[in-house]
Amino acid sequence: MVKTLIIGGGGMVGRKLAESLQKDETDEDLTLFDVIFPPETHGFKNRITGDITDPDVTNALAAARPELIYHLAAIVSGEAEADFDKGWQTNMLAFWRFLEALRAEHLASGGTYRPRVVFTSSIAVFGGPFPEEIDDVFLSAPLTSYGAQKASSELMLSDFSRKGFVDGISIRLPTICVRPGKPNKAASGFFSGIIREPLNGQEAILPVPTTVRHWHASPRAAVGFLRHSATLDLDLLEGRRALSLPGISCTIEEQIEALREVAGNDAVKLIKHVPDETISGMVAMWPRNFATERAISLGYEAESSFREIIEIYLQDDMPKPS
Amino acid sequence: MVKTLIIGGGGMVGRKLAESLQKDETDEDLTLFDVIFPPETHGFKNRITGDITDPDVTNALAAARPELIYHLAAIVSGEAEADFDKGWQTNMLAFWRFLEALRAEHLASGGTYRPRVVFTSSIAVFGGPFPEEIDDVFLSAPLTSYGAQKASSELMLSDFSRKGFVDGISIRLPTICVRPGKPNKAASGFFSGIIREPLNGQEAILPVPTTVRHWHASPRAAVGFLRHSATLDLDLLEGRRALSLPGISCTIEEQIEALREVAGNDAVKLIKHVPDETISGMVAMWPRNFATERAISLGYEAESSFREIIEIYLQDDMPKPS
Repeated sequence: MVKTLIIGGGGMVGRKLAESLQKDETDEDLTLFDVIFPPETHGFKNRITGDITDPDVTNALAAARPELIYHLAAIVSGEAEADFDKGWQTNMLAFWRFLEALRAEHLASGGTYRPRVVFTSSIAVFGGPFPEEIDDVFLSAPLTSYGAQKASSELMLSDFSRKGFVDGISIRLPTICVRPGKPNKAASGFFSGIIREPLNGQEAILPVPTTVRHWHASPRAAVGFLRHSATLDLDLLEGRRALSLPGISCTIEEQIEALREVAGNDAVKLIKHVPDETISGMVAMWPRNFATERAISLGYEAESSFREIIEIYLQDDMPKPS
Repeated sequence: MVKTLIIGGGGMVGRKLAESLQKDETDEDLTLFDVIFPPETHGFKNRITGDITDPDVTNALAAARPELIYHLAAIVSGEAEADFDKGWQTNMLAFWRFLEALRAEHLASGGTYRPRVVFTSSIAVFGGPFPEEIDDVFLSAPLTSYGAQKASSELMLSDFSRKGFVDGISIRLPTICVRPGKPNKAASGFFSGIIREPLNGQEAILPVPTTVRHWHASPRAAVGFLRHSATLDLDLLEGRRALSLPGISCTIEEQIEALREVAGNDAVKLIKHVPDETISGMVAMWPRNFATERAISLGYEAESSFREIIEIYLQDDMPKPS
């Protein structure tokens, strides 16, 4: 394994990425960094806990000169919106300082150190009004602080890469579905909840109309996107180093029909429609569909149906009866 | 006059803006800030010299609580490309700190202080390949550090504005032509030079083919853009606070024909074609044409022909025989 660092290795996707890397090789050259680690990660040998906004921390991470860096750490959308300071400090300024620290290592190495940086951006860089499908040349006009922070980070990573200090790519992941584990408080949480809870025999709340269309990929696809980004020849990007990735565009109604096919009517009956104006208003501003021709031509692969996304949850994450 | 600050008041456009404001009212409430001031500005009462990258300076500028701020200061494209550090520090990080200082004043005022910020961005936020015309929803994928710095500043200003800390707009000016004064070393300098020098009876060098198409507006139009941005109701922007402004798209050949109409064959004969591969290569990557429907519908006005641009030079800037 090339010397690898996962920033945000304690999160759901970071952990799955680490497990995937470990499956192929030993974890000798794998370091996970996060502010806190859940018990599932305690098997990994090299774990560093710290605050990414501390310049000593970013300097130390860069000084170890990892060859491959996956950057998945972020203050999530809701928190970045509520805490303006924390969002910009963590999602933009800390990333800027980290790039500066990598540039310092590049210069100190006489130009030989030039790490691959895979940065997870988000479809939140897009703000409405949208066309039916968002294509590869549609503008980034974010309507959240989180989206603005991700979009400016994309610009920085592109310029540091163009100058040859790092070799970076920003990948805009679809909403990851079905998220395993307990419901979380993210406004988008119900997209996973209405599948996961019924499959586990529990009630789920649907706060928006079933006509709502959204953009999904599985956690397994997310790991695939990240790993593909690690080895892709980035010269193929021809300077446009931010990429919207493939996914499945479907309505809630289509999600529910897929659930019915997989788990029957009894599962579907566990979905309770409790309209929430606030959540409906937020969701109405989110992207619904993409035409990701560039990513597809570069070899990125997602699921081909929402049913497949449900089946991946059953295979990878469904709690086994004890 | 509302209490007004021009950051970059010593530059060509900043000075013309100051003169335009002074024509309408006294300059009592007008402050010019720049790193250095040319003699032409010595008539303005309130001039502050300083380094915009010094946090004490940005804090002091914000602490005076100007109601209207024109931000025109920047490390220019060529220098930002040559000096990576200086470009990012000045064009991005200093702007970030200035916005933070304005936010601090907003909060200290209990939310009553919320200045209008008119930020001059650039068509350098766009990078090729381009469509025939760049429309209002085309992506920002800059291919220079200057463009990346301007594009990230746009994102920051939009988010600070969305949150209500300031009321900002980013305007992407066309290349300003005909620039008065002596030739400068900007790669784009010849677009002005091939008009200005012949009008003044001097030889001019054309380093690119006459088929090259580019995007122009006069200094007078630039002042108009800035002043229009000061009073426009920015709610009309519906969250998309970065705007490409109208201009004239024409080829070098069309520029030269306009010069012939205005000043005759003898003037045109002063243009010497000395091909320069480096400049031709740079110019090939620059935007050529825009469809600026949003800006036009919001009342921004540019010239309607390149001949008009030449006539404005003759009226406003042509040195008078002494």
